[in-house]
Amino acid sequence: MQRSELRSDIAWATPTQVVIHGLDLCEDIVGKIDFGDMAFLQIFSRLPRDADEKRIFNAMMVILVEHGITPSSLATRMTYCGAPEAVQAAVAAGLLGLGSVFVGSLDNAARMLQEAIPDKNNPGDISALAHSIVTEYRARKEIIPGVGHPFHKPIDPRSEALFRVARETGYYGPYAELMTHIGAEAERQTKRNLPVNVTAAMAAVASQMDVPWKVCRGLAVAARAVGLVGHIIEEMKRPMADELYLRTEHEATAHMVPKV
Amino acid sequence: MQRSELRSDIAWATPTQVVIHGLDLCEDIVGKIDFGDMAFLQIFSRLPRDADEKRIFNAMMVILVEHGITPSSLATRMTYCGAPEAVQAAVAAGLLGLGSVFVGSLDNAARMLQEAIPDKNNPGDISALAHSIVTEYRARKEIIPGVGHPFHKPIDPRSEALFRVARETGYYGPYAELMTHIGAEAERQTKRNLPVNVTAAMAAVASQMDVPWKVCRGLAVAARAVGLVGHIIEEMKRPMADELYLRTEHEATAHMVPKV
Amino acid sequence: MQRSELRSDIAWATPTQVVIHGLDLCEDIVGKIDFGDMAFLQIFSRLPRDADEKRIFNAMMVILVEHGITPSSLATRMTYCGAPEAVQAAVAAGLLGLGSVFVGSLDNAARMLQEAIPDKNNPGDISALAHSIVTEYRARKEIIPGVGHPFHKPIDPRSEALFRVARETGYYGPYAELMTHIGAEAERQTKRNLPVNVTAAMAAVASQMDVPWKVCRGLAVAARAVGLVGHIIEEMKRPMADELYLRTEHEATAHMVPKV
Amino acid sequence: MQRSELRSDIAWATPTQVVIHGLDLCEDIVGKIDFGDMAFLQIFSRLPRDADEKRIFNAMMVILVEHGITPSSLATRMTYCGAPEAVQAAVAAGLLGLGSVFVGSLDNAARMLQEAIPDKNNPGDISALAHSIVTEYRARKEIIPGVGHPFHKPIDPRSEALFRVARETGYYGPYAELMTHIGAEAERQTKRNLPVNVTAAMAAVASQMDVPWKVCRGLAVAARAVGLVGHIIEEMKRPMADELYLRTEHEATAHMVPKV
Repeated sequence: MQRSELRSDIAWATPTQVVIHGLDLCEDIVGKIDFGDMAFLQIFSRLPRDADEKRIFNAMMVILVEHGITPSSLATRMTYCGAPEAVQAAVAAGLLGLGSVFVGSLDNAARMLQEAIPDKNNPGDISALAHSIVTEYRARKEIIPGVGHPFHKPIDPRSEALFRVARETGYYGPYAELMTHIGAEAERQTKRNLPVNVTAAMAAVASQMDVPWKVCRGLAVAARAVGLVGHIIEEMKRPMADELYLRTEHEATAHMVPKV
Repeated sequence: MQRSELRSDIAWATPTQVVIHGLDLCEDIVGKIDFGDMAFLQIFSRLPRDADEKRIFNAMMVILVEHGITPSSLATRMTYCGAPEAVQAAVAAGLLGLGSVFVGSLDNAARMLQEAIPDKNNPGDISALAHSIVTEYRARKEIIPGVGHPFHKPIDPRSEALFRVARETGYYGPYAELMTHIGAEAERQTKRNLPVNVTAAMAAVASQMDVPWKVCRGLAVAARAVGLVGHIIEEMKRPMADELYLRTEHEATAHMVPKV
Repeated sequence: MQRSELRSDIAWATPTQVVIHGLDLCEDIVGKIDFGDMAFLQIFSRLPRDADEKRIFNAMMVILVEHGITPSSLATRMTYCGAPEAVQAAVAAGLLGLGSVFVGSLDNAARMLQEAIPDKNNPGDISALAHSIVTEYRARKEIIPGVGHPFHKPIDPRSEALFRVARETGYYGPYAELMTHIGAEAERQTKRNLPVNVTAAMAAVASQMDVPWKVCRGLAVAARAVGLVGHIIEEMKRPMADELYLRTEHEATAHMVPKV
Repeated sequence: MQRSELRSDIAWATPTQVVIHGLDLCEDIVGKIDFGDMAFLQIFSRLPRDADEKRIFNAMMVILVEHGITPSSLATRMTYCGAPEAVQAAVAAGLLGLGSVFVGSLDNAARMLQEAIPDKNNPGDISALAHSIVTEYRARKEIIPGVGHPFHKPIDPRSEALFRVARETGYYGPYAELMTHIGAEAERQTKRNLPVNVTAAMAAVASQMDVPWKVCRGLAVAARAVGLVGHIIEEMKRPMADELYLRTEHEATAHMVPKV
């Protein structure tokens, strides 16, 4: 009942050697490359080719790590409160909410950019692209991914910061330009404040690095896993889950509980 | 119904600024520090104090990222196969198996070391400590955490590599010595080959860095999240989940299915 | 910073009483109603109104419980293998793959049916509806949800079984008719064998019971959780995860491992 | 590289037939047995042997379904808020916190009972057993599982309700007696109010039904999955996650945010 072979090119091991994407773990990796390079290696199957590529990748990853008290970090804290012996489950619970609402705009923006510019060496007329994208999304009454932010306005300072590094490293290319044009065009057409938000800036940079749009959410998830560990450590020292659920239980059921 | 305040010291934001552990995201983090430093910041609430601390932390993290085809990476691939639109769930599924069997020895070894040496500046007689620990575990018929490996023998090359970096950076201290003595004492008492394995080396290094033993599993989980994204990317290009479950279904139920 | 109240109508408790959807847990539920009624109560906020409603609901739920060796049950087994102390994580891992590929056709079929017939008392011309639905899906080159099955063909015996119970209980109504017409019309237009599959039969029955399409996946997930516990029990007695991952690791990396 | 066969006895299928634990899905299950029986079948590999066994099993399962606003149901709601398209992930997130704090006492109580009475037909001197168990736990300064409840006191009405059904069905046997004696002995030795709580009552009943203690948590997890779907349905209609995280974010970071 074999229809096809099972094959993985990521890693292999013998009792005395471990090799990951062609690099010897003990000789080439441990003590030689850092965690950012290792993440790069897992995603691109090679090390960064130069300091610029390394810098822009790290800039993108660090933005994704920590977003404060969010539904995601609260799910982690709630889970830790019930299963402190299973830290892996607390991290996993926090990752599970990284879906369409908070991280989806990253994939969506990357997809929009990559479908508009299939070949970054031949981007075409970016201004015209932006115009037709905004017009089409509005005609379909769909939200344009990556523009506007409920809190960070009139501009999203994180987009500015990432685009600054992109310019310094040579990764502010056609995708970032298109994204910037889309933001401006959306503001023009809607007469509303619609800054390029951080997920759009990341989508543009990732696209310029040739990350397929389907992979973008994976980067966010990996980085956030690192951040959630920080929330577990704080929950160990200064728990809030217990207080929070008891308050919520009290308020949410007060209309039903008999007054004594 | 408030019994206590809710408080988090990790991060805060205004529309124009995001601050994480006291560092301004846009000014001090993006483009300035790398992903390894960011992970360090989340765990220790500060940046590495020097190049040695940075190097040993990164050495520890990179070892944890990729372990090849494991129950964990297969759970990720199986989940991706059913829910490719929810990459966060595929990563989470892979993390969920990082429990007592594969990662537990990391916490257990760190706990053993930290309880034996509560103050690393006053480690006491390490040889005597090792003797009594091994004797006690054997008397209780408990497995000594961190010694022996089913595959990497007679030595675990990863422990050697990590301890080498620990020596170069000044993090080969009392915990690493105690772990090494425990391995040797266990071999002496049992007459079996019981090398210090990679989880024990990490436990020793993490202890020397003042990581509480309960936090150790969190480091492993965060690093592995990065690794699992690599498996999702490969599963996108060269899937194995479908083939694997169909083969398994066929073999596992062949004794029941009627022969036609 | 309160913008709205927190309110839940599901349950409340005092030290001496627990009330769920208006029923006293100790007086009205324990020993009085069964697990199927309790599931019904959670979903509809009331008990089944008669034996027919109870029977069709249970018929739908039991179909969803056990699907043999699937990516989902293998993810559960893989997770149990690494974290046997965290049974909750093993169940969760198995649920995570219940996404677009295996369970998505349930929501999609229910949505298709409910959008086509917003009011089941005024279904309109079902034959014409089926014709236009099939024609439109084909024009958009989209898969018609709920028709065809890779294994259960030429008919899916489970759909037949569920529709039989639906007829006996009065729940074979406009949605089931529409689904049946869609299957026939799809076969006519494509000249291929496209039986109404089990997810479509469930979608039709759930729609007739007024389950909103977005809730349908929840039913599947709850029922499968019960099934996954069966796989954990078997994995405890007769494990396969270890053998399966070692075989896979061996085969998948054989092309890279040096021949000795 | 095959070391052993892969084998599952749970289910098999041909294109025209599905058989689960020896029962034909379409002939013997759908429309014939209810959801409670199906859960029983998955757990015991057979149907209930009589009405009493069916009733006590259902009584145990229904207690576990809904526990109101808890860390678990809040984790589900937080996850739904971020990933409403992945209902399976929201259920999974809620299950992940069913660990040592809330559900662990179920396994622990069942283990205590089953180790004290390995053969329920020869329970020995139950009063003496209770005395030595309580004395030993107190000597080890360990919490006695299953006695005391922070909210349901002086008695836990749910234990009373389950034990009443157990008496009516013949499942109030040596394990329930032992648990009751342990509660009384603990109150006598500690001079504190320590009622037999609901997890202990369930542990006693499950033990009398020959459920191995390691499987007990699985029952709780499966039942709770059903309950969590109810919270998702309510969150769809009357969301609280968004309000809850924004309030929490505001309160938890107020000490750091600059006053304008």
